[in-house]
Amino acid sequence: MTTTRPDLPAATADEIEAMDAWWRANNYLTVGQIYLMANPLLREPLTPEHIKPRLLGHWGTSPGLSFVYTHLSRVIRHTGQQAIFLTGPGHGGPALVAAGYLEGTYSEIYPDVREDEDGIRRLFRQFSAPGGIPSHVSVTTPGSIHEGGELGYVLSHAFGAVMDNPDLLALAVVGDGEAETGPLEGSWKGISFLNPARDGAVLPVLHLNGAKIAGPTVLGRKPPEEVRSLLEGHGYEVFEVEGGDLPGMHERFAETLATAYARITGIQDAARSGGWDGTRPRWPLIVLRSPKGWTGPDVVDDVQVEGTWRAHQVPLSGVKENDDHRRMLEEWMRSYRPDELFDESGAPTQLVRSANPSGELRMSASPHANGGLVTRDLDIPDYRQFARDVPEPATERAESTRAIGEMMRELYRRNPTTFRLFSPDETNSNRVGAVFEVSDRMTAERTVDIDEKLSRDGRVMEVLSEHNCHGWLEGYTLTGRHGLFATYEAFAMVSASMTVQHCKWLQEANRLDWRAKVPSLNILLTSTAWRNDHNGFSHQGPGLIQTVLNARGDVARIYLPPDANCLLSVADHCFRSKNYVNLIVIDKQPQPQWLSIDEATAHCAAGAGIWDWAGTDDGDRDPDVVLACAGDVVTMEVVAAAQILKERLPQLRVRVVNVVDLMTLARPRSHPHGMDPVRFGELFTDHVDVVFAFHGYHGAVHQLVHGRPDADRFHVRGFSEEGTTTTPFDMVVRNQVDRYHLVIDTINNAGRQVRGSSELQRWCEQQLAKHETYIVEHLEDMPEVRDWVMTTVVDD
Amino acid sequence: MTTTRPDLPAATADEIEAMDAWWRANNYLTVGQIYLMANPLLREPLTPEHIKPRLLGHWGTSPGLSFVYTHLSRVIRHTGQQAIFLTGPGHGGPALVAAGYLEGTYSEIYPDVREDEDGIRRLFRQFSAPGGIPSHVSVTTPGSIHEGGELGYVLSHAFGAVMDNPDLLALAVVGDGEAETGPLEGSWKGISFLNPARDGAVLPVLHLNGAKIAGPTVLGRKPPEEVRSLLEGHGYEVFEVEGGDLPGMHERFAETLATAYARITGIQDAARSGGWDGTRPRWPLIVLRSPKGWTGPDVVDDVQVEGTWRAHQVPLSGVKENDDHRRMLEEWMRSYRPDELFDESGAPTQLVRSANPSGELRMSASPHANGGLVTRDLDIPDYRQFARDVPEPATERAESTRAIGEMMRELYRRNPTTFRLFSPDETNSNRVGAVFEVSDRMTAERTVDIDEKLSRDGRVMEVLSEHNCHGWLEGYTLTGRHGLFATYEAFAMVSASMTVQHCKWLQEANRLDWRAKVPSLNILLTSTAWRNDHNGFSHQGPGLIQTVLNARGDVARIYLPPDANCLLSVADHCFRSKNYVNLIVIDKQPQPQWLSIDEATAHCAAGAGIWDWAGTDDGDRDPDVVLACAGDVVTMEVVAAAQILKERLPQLRVRVVNVVDLMTLARPRSHPHGMDPVRFGELFTDHVDVVFAFHGYHGAVHQLVHGRPDADRFHVRGFSEEGTTTTPFDMVVRNQVDRYHLVIDTINNAGRQVRGSSELQRWCEQQLAKHETYIVEHLEDMPEVRDWVMTTVVDD
Repeated sequence: MTTTRPDLPAATADEIEAMDAWWRANNYLTVGQIYLMANPLLREPLTPEHIKPRLLGHWGTSPGLSFVYTHLSRVIRHTGQQAIFLTGPGHGGPALVAAGYLEGTYSEIYPDVREDEDGIRRLFRQFSAPGGIPSHVSVTTPGSIHEGGELGYVLSHAFGAVMDNPDLLALAVVGDGEAETGPLEGSWKGISFLNPARDGAVLPVLHLNGAKIAGPTVLGRKPPEEVRSLLEGHGYEVFEVEGGDLPGMHERFAETLATAYARITGIQDAARSGGWDGTRPRWPLIVLRSPKGWTGPDVVDDVQVEGTWRAHQVPLSGVKENDDHRRMLEEWMRSYRPDELFDESGAPTQLVRSANPSGELRMSASPHANGGLVTRDLDIPDYRQFARDVPEPATERAESTRAIGEMMRELYRRNPTTFRLFSPDETNSNRVGAVFEVSDRMTAERTVDIDEKLSRDGRVMEVLSEHNCHGWLEGYTLTGRHGLFATYEAFAMVSASMTVQHCKWLQEANRLDWRAKVPSLNILLTSTAWRNDHNGFSHQGPGLIQTVLNARGDVARIYLPPDANCLLSVADHCFRSKNYVNLIVIDKQPQPQWLSIDEATAHCAAGAGIWDWAGTDDGDRDPDVVLACAGDVVTMEVVAAAQILKERLPQLRVRVVNVVDLMTLARPRSHPHGMDPVRFGELFTDHVDVVFAFHGYHGAVHQLVHGRPDADRFHVRGFSEEGTTTTPFDMVVRNQVDRYHLVIDTINNAGRQVRGSSELQRWCEQQLAKHETYIVEHLEDMPEVRDWVMTTVVDD
Repeated sequence: MTTTRPDLPAATADEIEAMDAWWRANNYLTVGQIYLMANPLLREPLTPEHIKPRLLGHWGTSPGLSFVYTHLSRVIRHTGQQAIFLTGPGHGGPALVAAGYLEGTYSEIYPDVREDEDGIRRLFRQFSAPGGIPSHVSVTTPGSIHEGGELGYVLSHAFGAVMDNPDLLALAVVGDGEAETGPLEGSWKGISFLNPARDGAVLPVLHLNGAKIAGPTVLGRKPPEEVRSLLEGHGYEVFEVEGGDLPGMHERFAETLATAYARITGIQDAARSGGWDGTRPRWPLIVLRSPKGWTGPDVVDDVQVEGTWRAHQVPLSGVKENDDHRRMLEEWMRSYRPDELFDESGAPTQLVRSANPSGELRMSASPHANGGLVTRDLDIPDYRQFARDVPEPATERAESTRAIGEMMRELYRRNPTTFRLFSPDETNSNRVGAVFEVSDRMTAERTVDIDEKLSRDGRVMEVLSEHNCHGWLEGYTLTGRHGLFATYEAFAMVSASMTVQHCKWLQEANRLDWRAKVPSLNILLTSTAWRNDHNGFSHQGPGLIQTVLNARGDVARIYLPPDANCLLSVADHCFRSKNYVNLIVIDKQPQPQWLSIDEATAHCAAGAGIWDWAGTDDGDRDPDVVLACAGDVVTMEVVAAAQILKERLPQLRVRVVNVVDLMTLARPRSHPHGMDPVRFGELFTDHVDVVFAFHGYHGAVHQLVHGRPDADRFHVRGFSEEGTTTTPFDMVVRNQVDRYHLVIDTINNAGRQVRGSSELQRWCEQQLAKHETYIVEHLEDMPEVRDWVMTTVVDD
């Protein structure tokens, strides 16, 4: 039985004085970042020359953020609690930069920004300036795992960060603007998936200052009892602090935070000492109502600013030209009494520093927020042990995703606290249910007798929310753990914007030496467009490929393994990689298996290769045509088309090329995986027509091969937005990427002169007509719907 | 003062008998759709030959849906209430198809599916079968404006449908799986934007049957008092009905629905008679707890099915092979007593029919759900009246989006109840604030003295939720009204999946004669990648273009007007159009104006054209190079590059082509706007190098020009994911799409042999070096940051 942690003492007057000084220093530095390029400590009267020419930044939310920050620092100083601070209102950038500066972390990371007057001058100048730092809490901000620019994800990041991180407290400030977004509203439920015995805690602070850019917020205007009811309905114990009075707010917030912290330790201590009855704890949550632009200008030009949306950005806009505004700015900044906050040299005074925790307990220096520092490599089993036996191509069928399910089962076994699978309720549906042999689904809510594989000790994360799955995995990997997000291909677009933003984060992180590399974000898309024949058109969309295609090559990877063994090889690579978004696309339905594990390994290492056995290319000279494919279902159609050609037009020399790593098609200057011209020519020649069957939209291949020799010879078929509830084979026919259309394409592009081609084309057209009749007659006579026969690759 | 509507009478035993018969008939038809291909009325014993070979469909949610449906029909019969039914749990397709069939609508629309035994046979066969209908509530389902496949949007669609639709009640069933998604959780707040005097009402029914595909739901397992607290926190008055007992459930639900309906009419009558105090009403909401798979098999193979996730899809899976299962199926179907439900011919009996409302009051026949029938064309002012005076190119600067703001101001004036603007709190920021001269922002929450342009009578819809903006506009247009969704370009990706799904909806609708065309969904992307220099990298992303590019040409349009007058011409076209998703991309910052309104009209009608005045192309023969552009900022850079070339390399014949309608670049077979080869050649020739500056990712142009003559000659620069907080000009330099890089590209591709080109290249490199020094020095010396000078198009 672990010891129950003691309650925090009440804040002393000295502590409040120190916190207030730290807070004033932070506000001072925040205002300075927005306005000043010189005279940073106001050691001379403010003149227009000291003012930045372009005033950028967001004042409104900042004082509230730094207020919460310094109060949490007090808790840390007393308890040694490991904590990170997540800033939902991204526009509070300057406050968090100032926090890192006051804690000394900023100067440690960026030595040019010293702890003296010149350092403060640089701190001010660099903010929101070319060559400097962005206006948001961003990758460059020490202590951050969350870029606040696109709103909605702060809670899901926080919950991901504390999963399997029992000693971590993640305080997440939710702005009331952000609280209006769907993804944020959907993320309060994180506590329904948190186990206090083995996970850390999230303390949300809903910061209601009442306004967004140009008007009030919904929660800011709702009756407080409704807000309370809402949050209690989400399962929280709600604490409220309201006002702008000082030091009253310090006293009340310190007390409330101490109570909330005691609740957290109480819940955790009980759970960790066996005193938990298993019901979902009512975790604490703080609603902080403080004025927007708190401590800033009250009234400007006879208009109320503090407490309104007008304080959102730059409350005094005319400071360069307008003497009155400039005087108000100077008064405002001096109201923080900078002489008490910075010493002669410009360094923070002892009073200010006394509010800081020390070392890695400073939130700006937390290794949890630089997750690469605490990453343990995954213990990965030899993927060959999950290999399918494939003595020769297309003799076996298998549900390929089961292989990665088995691999993940072993990942769960070997890495019990550093690996998780995230999925919208589709683990079994996606055929990766082998993980349930080791871990249950997680719930902290009530369970009943008939539940299967569901418990509070589970680590398989199922929630019907792509936003939560993606956000939790981001938080989990950014704090140094590993995982995979598996989802229906079409619905990956629900969280596409998160994928884009995470790519941006990684790209920025790559450029910062001090950011240690973190495990990649792995996304497995299954239940793909081609095999959602049962679910219909809404479930058919390969759009995420197109989205990831435009991320930069140093962070984005797209893999289309055609079978289970290739999937294993790809997955092994992805699980070992760092700082990437790895997109893996493969279906879950039974499908032919092509390569032995050794062949698959070699094929995936190359990224693309010739499948000799499938074509009639003798290798001595260029083929007449290349049939290329990327994606499992279309690979089957290409192999079938090649077989038809082999049997019925044997004079035509056909080469079959399969592409696993889509970005090999790009030119090397566009993507590091891009094949060099020699290798590209070895596969595709420099002049032979290529009939390319692609899993996704054909434009993706068009854009990739642009600039390759005679790119127009690439005739691409892909998903052309034709779908419904139908047979699997009808899906490929509707999109003209079936074997018969591919043969006709081949003839039209490269085989018109070969004897017998007209007959073959006619035969293909007959097959298609037969198919159409079959589909139409089906309605009338409903003959047995034959499954898409795949025991032989050609099926008439 | 309008009359207060009377309360509903309690349901009589006869009414309950009729509703129960209708419900049994619906359940019977639902099961039949999933299982049977023959013997539809079980007039002979069930044999394997009667069973479909592939069992598809979702039983679990269906009986609850039809239960609610028939009860609402009773309300309609008594009150004449116009109502539509939105099915959040999309998998309930067969229940809603059956509803339309029992109401007679199905046979009216699809005459092959008659009201007799053969009709029922066809109804069964077509379901989830090739050539038939999809498994979800879909476009083919009469009475639907909502495809349930991708979860999360049912409430936002419902709220959009009732805005400015005072006589409409939209009942929206929210499944407890869907209730876990972020977009759904963010959409409860619709009532904070509803005015009971002029808008209709949404009645949400949260249908908690406790499970999704493979496990329980969060709300299904939360303590009921928490669920109530949550929904009350969203502002609703919560009514709860629970159980599976009959006829008790009928009695209790009828009573609850009558009470809820009385609340709605009470709220509306008060508001419409001046008796509303202006506080946001507590609208009613029903929580229905009924067993998943209600009335279906209880236990199968000794495993509990009813009430668990096992009832989600096909509860008896082995009916073809397994005699026991088949016997259970027959018992199950016969338990509905089909002989009482269908007469000798197979038509629904009078008892069943007596539960139907009549005519257009049948929810499956509501014209609101076939919005083209009730669409009134917008009264559109002559867009020329908002034209900017542009005597010659680039002499004026303007914030172009102000023009569409003024146009929308007039749309609000002329179409007071059929036009709305939807935006995430960015109306002023996006410079379309002219609308506030006519309409306020809408809120139903508390307002205070200092609020500006905010009232319960407002029709400008600002909510910080792209999902709500998009969803409301979808609901608004699908019920026949007009609007525009304006948002920051980067954050349009938040709702990208909704854009994809709406394109799919329109594509399907185009193929159904009975679906009248609805107003287009217009999306204005502003605050673009190039001019979010102040907000930074997270705000910089042109991804939605790439997403819409892959929608089919018959529903998707992408416009990149380069200035205000082109924007007006494009907007006029979009507001008149039907059944499209129109994507318009233009920035809000001051920018040069190029064309007079007459020139703009002609230019936009053509979609792309040569700008003679910008180049040195004499038109007599092919130019040496084409400088092409699509997008406002890059157009400026191309014009500037052309001017540099004109001045410094006058021998080079340069043609400038501007593209407004992006899809003109596609081949005609790919998109109806695609230029024919002759026209394409007139602009781009068939061999001259084209240096193309594009607003979005360069791959978009690559994929569009694939297959055009010698497509490799298109050298495209675009947004290459390089961004931060910086100067506007640095943004284009970082992405190498600035004037100097474009000149260097031109020289490298087409001007190497021209005398003076090396000098010019060196000069350009010097300019770029100067820029870089400037950026770097900036940090040190912070000289005045010059704005991106645009009074002349070339700025050294």
